[in-house]
Amino acid sequence: MIASSTLSVPNLGLAPRTSYANHQPILKTPNASASSSEPQARKPKGSSQLTRWSRARAIRSGRKLDRAGQRTQLLEPNSPVQPRERVSLDVKDDTSTGSDGGDDVEMTAGKSIYMVSDGTGWTVEHSVNAALGQFEHCLVDRGCAVNTHLFSGIDEVERLMEIVKQAAKEGAMLVYTLADPSMAESARHACKHWGIPTTDMLGPITEAIATHLGVSPSGLPRGAPGRSFPLTDDYFRRIEAIEFTIKQDDGALPQNLHKADIILAGVSRTGKTPLSIYLAQKGYKVANVPIVMGVPLPNTLFEVDPEKVFGLTINPLVLQTIRRARAKTLGFSEGMRSNYSEMDYVRQELEFARRILAQNPIWPVIEVTGKAIEETAAVVLRLYHDRKHKCSMPRISKRY
Amino acid sequence: MIASSTLSVPNLGLAPRTSYANHQPILKTPNASASSSEPQARKPKGSSQLTRWSRARAIRSGRKLDRAGQRTQLLEPNSPVQPRERVSLDVKDDTSTGSDGGDDVEMTAGKSIYMVSDGTGWTVEHSVNAALGQFEHCLVDRGCAVNTHLFSGIDEVERLMEIVKQAAKEGAMLVYTLADPSMAESARHACKHWGIPTTDMLGPITEAIATHLGVSPSGLPRGAPGRSFPLTDDYFRRIEAIEFTIKQDDGALPQNLHKADIILAGVSRTGKTPLSIYLAQKGYKVANVPIVMGVPLPNTLFEVDPEKVFGLTINPLVLQTIRRARAKTLGFSEGMRSNYSEMDYVRQELEFARRILAQNPIWPVIEVTGKAIEETAAVVLRLYHDRKHKCSMPRISKRY
Repeated sequence: MIASSTLSVPNLGLAPRTSYANHQPILKTPNASASSSEPQARKPKGSSQLTRWSRARAIRSGRKLDRAGQRTQLLEPNSPVQPRERVSLDVKDDTSTGSDGGDDVEMTAGKSIYMVSDGTGWTVEHSVNAALGQFEHCLVDRGCAVNTHLFSGIDEVERLMEIVKQAAKEGAMLVYTLADPSMAESARHACKHWGIPTTDMLGPITEAIATHLGVSPSGLPRGAPGRSFPLTDDYFRRIEAIEFTIKQDDGALPQNLHKADIILAGVSRTGKTPLSIYLAQKGYKVANVPIVMGVPLPNTLFEVDPEKVFGLTINPLVLQTIRRARAKTLGFSEGMRSNYSEMDYVRQELEFARRILAQNPIWPVIEVTGKAIEETAAVVLRLYHDRKHKCSMPRISKRY
Repeated sequence: MIASSTLSVPNLGLAPRTSYANHQPILKTPNASASSSEPQARKPKGSSQLTRWSRARAIRSGRKLDRAGQRTQLLEPNSPVQPRERVSLDVKDDTSTGSDGGDDVEMTAGKSIYMVSDGTGWTVEHSVNAALGQFEHCLVDRGCAVNTHLFSGIDEVERLMEIVKQAAKEGAMLVYTLADPSMAESARHACKHWGIPTTDMLGPITEAIATHLGVSPSGLPRGAPGRSFPLTDDYFRRIEAIEFTIKQDDGALPQNLHKADIILAGVSRTGKTPLSIYLAQKGYKVANVPIVMGVPLPNTLFEVDPEKVFGLTINPLVLQTIRRARAKTLGFSEGMRSNYSEMDYVRQELEFARRILAQNPIWPVIEVTGKAIEETAAVVLRLYHDRKHKCSMPRISKRY
């Protein structure tokens, strides 16, 4: 709130919404209720539980101040709030709030990138992640750490301003996807005011598409009223693809192979399962069939359209590394063969697979060594669409 | 090739690579081999099978010409190529090459967006898809169709130029993510030359990060040699999360609930499975527990940390619609109850679920009505990280 008045950024007269108002009618937002300790904030609409959370957070925020760094203390209740010290110390605590996947990670060192979205935030996260791929040569294990912080569902200028102010304190850069033009303008304005390097991730492409179509963008964040999510056939198809793919995992229900769009065949730990799931998310029904030395493949695999079958292969040394890690995770409790990660066995099984794949030359064989799942997925889908559509310039086309 | 010489875009002396060279040592690219019909193209390195494909494609490309629209004829071998007619007719065929998910979609009408990437193309696809969300009010079902065409693994300027030329013919706009600065420059240059509206999706954010870090970007496309994919703990963790989540689907192995990062509870068709998978892709171990009227929930659900349990609820009418679609897909062959989608039953089961969730007030209850899976995922993860890290400005943080 302070920030927005300081910056004389106009209150944009957005209908007052909690950050989850679009998302969660039942549970009110902790974010918005965090402001309940400030008199000028509107009344929090939270449940009594939320009000407790809100108080607890206000207390914790204060607590940080006199016990900077002692995060173990942060949960002590009823500790005095010392707002005047808050600003400088907030940063320490707010930058050590764990990592994707839920692991706790100390974020005391490294440059920060703030990512702000009025929607889910997945687009800005995806884009920043992709851009950071250009700096692999200097990231965490090479001593130049980057901490990203995703703030999603930011649909009120006051909260936007709090984040911008925090970014300024922390010397972070700020990347945003804000559909509401006045929110985007406020971000630009505030970042300029505070001297924060900033990038509008979707503004340019949205303008370009608007010009191309001759239509104005709606300016509505995802999930906003008026952008109600339709239960399209496409939506049902994707969910069906995911459910199909899960049921088919690891060679289950070979009698259903003919129903699959894509069938993956390869030895254990060539990434069949995560690859199947990745493709299923994109709407493809995927079945994967493990190749195990000495175990015959299901007859149905040889009865289906061979153009939808893809073989996966991998370097033996890399496979051994992956299998060792796997064996370590599982132990052999799940009936893993004790020779599962022995090099002789690995080589023999890969040779066994090579022969089977060679006997079916129509099946493309994809080398997965050194590829992330999404890279292999790109290869599979390029081939899939090229074979399916036989066009002179292979591409994946989609209609909106 | 023609395009690049016409455009006097310098050959950048990239090591000649097929488009799958980074991806697929065993199967050579159909794409590059498409050029084998042109004398000035370098020799295709394809297998004999690929050379056949290449010839077939060249023939098809020609075949289009005298049998425009008669795609059933395209596979006839040895038909005369009539290059002079090729240009105008290529467009027709190249723009009707199906859709994501493998359905065939006629793309005769509508504006085109070409998406070009030297990597997987998922970032440009994700970004364009997000930007198109701003035009929902005028897309296909409202008579203003948009066709997107994704060209991934484009790491040679010749192929880039072919695509730009095709975009020009088609009056398409072109969006690209090209890590190699000279490829990006070629794209800019060519699009300007042909008057094609264009957007560089990752250039600005990459430059901004470079300035912020004081480090130059590598300029290497994903999957390029020198960007070899490391088998990090994070990689194994994500795969483990996906495999865990699949095993736990639909209430399986309740004895493992304590191993989950996140547990989802809700009645059938509240999206537990696709939501679980979406979260698993992000590295979270997810278990989902179905609430079925009259069936007691597993005791372990009440023994685990309640802060990791999330309830899902939904509007009865919407649920009925989804269940009807589901019942139609499955029939009742999979033991679906015949009253599964009857409104009385739907209401009673939702009330049964409401009471259970109300008895466990620590479990947030998330309203999924009108939300896409990724929107619900954003809400779950905001709450998850807020509860886990108790910081004053809720965010999802990650270290690179």
